[in-house]
Amino acid sequence: MKKLINRPEDVVADALAGFALAHRDRLVVHTDPVFVVRADAPVEGKVGIVSGGGSGHEPMHVGFVGEGMLDAACPGEVFTSPTPDQMQAATEAVDGGAGVLHIVKNYTGDVMNFQMAAELAQAEGAEVEAVVIDDDVSVQDSLYTAGRRGVGATVLAEKLCGAAAAKQWPLSAVAALCRRVNAESRSMGVALTSCTVPMAGKPTFELGGGEVELGIGIHGEPGRQRRMLTPAAELVETMASAVVDDLPFGRGDHVLAFVNGMGGTPLMELYIVYAELHRFLQERGIEIERRLIGSYMTSLDMAGCSITLLRLDEDLAALWDAPVDTPALRWGR
Amino acid sequence: MKKLINRPEDVVADALAGFALAHRDRLVVHTDPVFVVRADAPVEGKVGIVSGGGSGHEPMHVGFVGEGMLDAACPGEVFTSPTPDQMQAATEAVDGGAGVLHIVKNYTGDVMNFQMAAELAQAEGAEVEAVVIDDDVSVQDSLYTAGRRGVGATVLAEKLCGAAAAKQWPLSAVAALCRRVNAESRSMGVALTSCTVPMAGKPTFELGGGEVELGIGIHGEPGRQRRMLTPAAELVETMASAVVDDLPFGRGDHVLAFVNGMGGTPLMELYIVYAELHRFLQERGIEIERRLIGSYMTSLDMAGCSITLLRLDEDLAALWDAPVDTPALRWGR
Repeated sequence: MKKLINRPEDVVADALAGFALAHRDRLVVHTDPVFVVRADAPVEGKVGIVSGGGSGHEPMHVGFVGEGMLDAACPGEVFTSPTPDQMQAATEAVDGGAGVLHIVKNYTGDVMNFQMAAELAQAEGAEVEAVVIDDDVSVQDSLYTAGRRGVGATVLAEKLCGAAAAKQWPLSAVAALCRRVNAESRSMGVALTSCTVPMAGKPTFELGGGEVELGIGIHGEPGRQRRMLTPAAELVETMASAVVDDLPFGRGDHVLAFVNGMGGTPLMELYIVYAELHRFLQERGIEIERRLIGSYMTSLDMAGCSITLLRLDEDLAALWDAPVDTPALRWGR
Repeated sequence: MKKLINRPEDVVADALAGFALAHRDRLVVHTDPVFVVRADAPVEGKVGIVSGGGSGHEPMHVGFVGEGMLDAACPGEVFTSPTPDQMQAATEAVDGGAGVLHIVKNYTGDVMNFQMAAELAQAEGAEVEAVVIDDDVSVQDSLYTAGRRGVGATVLAEKLCGAAAAKQWPLSAVAALCRRVNAESRSMGVALTSCTVPMAGKPTFELGGGEVELGIGIHGEPGRQRRMLTPAAELVETMASAVVDDLPFGRGDHVLAFVNGMGGTPLMELYIVYAELHRFLQERGIEIERRLIGSYMTSLDMAGCSITLLRLDEDLAALWDAPVDTPALRWGR
């Protein structure tokens, strides 16, 4: 294992220490329990948005804390759910009187712990709603997951719900938006290499020299199929077909296309994938109205990418365009 | 070789096709000769800023074209200088009557070709100045380079000179600023793995299981020393010592710290490096006033990072904070 780390058992704490120093003008990193929160939280009268999950997917979620996106994020150990006390503390820290939305990726530990945290916070008088994201079309059930896994749509839901909350939407409307974003999104990923969990010290799985794993999970969970690496055009066709056929997306649809790098894949390759995705969708009369290209939801050092499509209307596009100011996503006015 | 590409000979064209589609609202990608330019170029009365170099370092330079940074960028083939006709066409496209600055990384081909382009453009009546960036302290001469190599300071110079040009500084002042940024910057990198050039199909060099190459060049040129991978704290101490001792930076200095990923390194590790760098500098009374953490100047799929320090004063800090709106760097007001 070759990584820029100190002791494997300290990677999350060490990375959060760097993150706290880098972003201390806007964010506060609490350490007991661990959560990252906007320095100006709670924002009175605004719905608070909280997400979280295992570390190793950076910048998700901590890099999405800030104006127009998350109010707080709870990072667990690598590929391990955070605990209910983290989520409860984050929920209380961002509750400005308008309630709190939990955006939860569909992994059994995350769902269970967020549910427990919601109950604890509710017992203290907070109004909490939770939405579970399950946009990965690759497999039905999976390691760590009953039903479909939550992947790229999480990033989109956090941005869009953050924008709605900033516009003072009430909790029920922000939660309904989150459910709608999930319902209108589909994703699929591919791995060219495994990732290596620091405490394990060796690759999570083995891929043969020319092999790829289609439908990979973000923790290296098995996908749909192993096959030989093909040109990007063919790989994208396979993934995009699975995504498009599942909803289904059809002629005349406008979409947000999200090409996400898994951590070990350079930007050049993501633009090649984007070009192929654009061609694929254009041939089917599906128009890319907005796009996000980069490594936003990673799997440690895994090489590979995922494709997410979200069906857009004008309202969703306007929420996408709304200002956001976080370490990882930033645009304005 | 496992990459998300089509034919190895098409990677630059394919990636630029994706880039053009993704950013067509703001940028234009010309294909004969190849250069990327702001859609609103030339901006009348503003100094035009042009950079360029081999591809494989994305987002540098094409991702830095936009308001407040570059007016145009010329991408060559992978790790290969662009040609003078590209640079000449870009220069003419961005000349709004106030002259054009070429920001050139110190590689023999780039320097020679930019010089030829400047002469061609000058013969057509353009006012052109060129500044060569050579901030890498690792080695004196190198493969492809007489003198020191140009690395991370290039990104900083492009941002700062772009801000000065946007404030209508005259060409002589923007060029002087660029020389100053170069003079006040020092960098060093480390590779944990080689990169693989698509047309070569195999790693550029071999590193043993636990080895790293200190002082690596961004094309995989040999560095100072091979040694066994140590904890991040020790690696950072070695690199930061070389950087700090060279200028030298000293107690009371304020710096911009740039921790750059090489393409195959996830963000989590860069934050760990940043935490160690912060500790190292703090012990020496050097204060990090601004920071940039991410993969901005990559070497294809190489795992590793580089550290750049730039000595800041209030004027440089204000130029850093000025609005920038490019695919890869974006902040506002």
